[in-house]
Amino acid sequence: MTGFVSIVGAGPGNPDLLTVRAARRLAAADLVLYDALVETDVLALASHAQRFCVGKRAGERSVGQTTIDRLMVRGARRGKQVVRLKCGDPFVLGRGGEEALALVSAGVPFEVIPGITCAIAAPGLAGIPVTHRGVASGFLVVSGHSEAAYGPLLDGVPPHTTTVIILMGLTSRPKIAARLLARGWSLRTPAAVVLGAGTPRMRTWTGVLGDLGRAELDVTDGAPATIVVGDVVGLRLGVDNTRSAMPTARAVAIGQQR
Amino acid sequence: MTGFVSIVGAGPGNPDLLTVRAARRLAAADLVLYDALVETDVLALASHAQRFCVGKRAGERSVGQTTIDRLMVRGARRGKQVVRLKCGDPFVLGRGGEEALALVSAGVPFEVIPGITCAIAAPGLAGIPVTHRGVASGFLVVSGHSEAAYGPLLDGVPPHTTTVIILMGLTSRPKIAARLLARGWSLRTPAAVVLGAGTPRMRTWTGVLGDLGRAELDVTDGAPATIVVGDVVGLRLGVDNTRSAMPTARAVAIGQQR
Repeated sequence: MTGFVSIVGAGPGNPDLLTVRAARRLAAADLVLYDALVETDVLALASHAQRFCVGKRAGERSVGQTTIDRLMVRGARRGKQVVRLKCGDPFVLGRGGEEALALVSAGVPFEVIPGITCAIAAPGLAGIPVTHRGVASGFLVVSGHSEAAYGPLLDGVPPHTTTVIILMGLTSRPKIAARLLARGWSLRTPAAVVLGAGTPRMRTWTGVLGDLGRAELDVTDGAPATIVVGDVVGLRLGVDNTRSAMPTARAVAIGQQR
Repeated sequence: MTGFVSIVGAGPGNPDLLTVRAARRLAAADLVLYDALVETDVLALASHAQRFCVGKRAGERSVGQTTIDRLMVRGARRGKQVVRLKCGDPFVLGRGGEEALALVSAGVPFEVIPGITCAIAAPGLAGIPVTHRGVASGFLVVSGHSEAAYGPLLDGVPPHTTTVIILMGLTSRPKIAARLLARGWSLRTPAAVVLGAGTPRMRTWTGVLGDLGRAELDVTDGAPATIVVGDVVGLRLGVDNTRSAMPTARAVAIGQQR
């Protein structure tokens, strides 16, 4: 009996922003290997699975990539339905491709289930459209982890035509802002930082690019941050998110109701 | 009694790639205003709602934007739970921001429910990660509708550092390819066109940028196309999508099972 691996996007955090397909795979899983930032209420959907945290938070020790790969392969070879649960979308800045390559090498069958990425959903939930006619006709998504990586991409964007979205850029904010300003973006370009998008602790800072580097943000809970720079932030539409309070895991345990 | 409008992303097509939140809103809706490309099986979730198609397919007449806005506002003022159901994510190249602005102007309360965008999910379902360490550390999403809009954005991307994703670019393929080649991208850059992502009719062309403009594609069914250009296409990982066959609408009618 051969098992199977589903590389699943968990979305931004709230369990009802999982896809229906992801919720089903969790309900049917024997083994779940999850990132540290996945919310408890999402994990609760995998009610009969063994669950292991294999992710890291900034500054803490983590399980190495080769160990994650080995755990996936071993689980599948033992006939298990394995879910590798990753924050957001598995293929957006999350090593999903590397994990898929490991499965290809090992001859283990797998699928990829897309998830809602914070790159789009964090601004969306804050009422900021990443594109808007006459304001921005496209958007760039980069990681703020390494200036060597994001620098040339930010330099390429013609100022004020594109929405720039940076994931994992909280500590690089000053450098990112300086880089965009040097490229010709105005100090007064609207900018936002969305923290903990899709969770009950979601909060949004909005201001201007000139203040992005020095804005004081409450980051004590380690919530993931999405930075948005561009004129679309100035549109900030007054959404009413009161109907989206965190539901209980039971309410979305749809896989078990089939 | 005041109604409420949910601007909802329908995702790429398959109903089980809806979010759980979106499926619930459809199940509870009184009125659904949907884009032409939304799949029948997704609409079936709104089992007790009035449903009106307000979208357009290329070349066909469509309901004007002001009419859509008026229908949303009128429905909410009559106390209805209105779902404005849009393909993919409402804020990715889909006028979601304009519709939200109309609701703000009219004083109608609303929310935005993010959806899985084809920009990321179409390559993902085809086994193409939009980012991959050492290959692409970011991605650009643009509309292929107007060269005046996408031209400067494509010109800005340093060749071979970023994944370029174009929605609604099927007819502009030759111009898009020419523009990237003129910018210095290699003729041999891997490229893909994913048609009908997330539906049973999904198919993927892969080749090189030099052939993108003249590739013969089966577009007779009007399926939406996602174009991907970049070295990540060369990774194309062999995903097994057999477990993701289109489920019946009933199987995902989870909103009704609460």
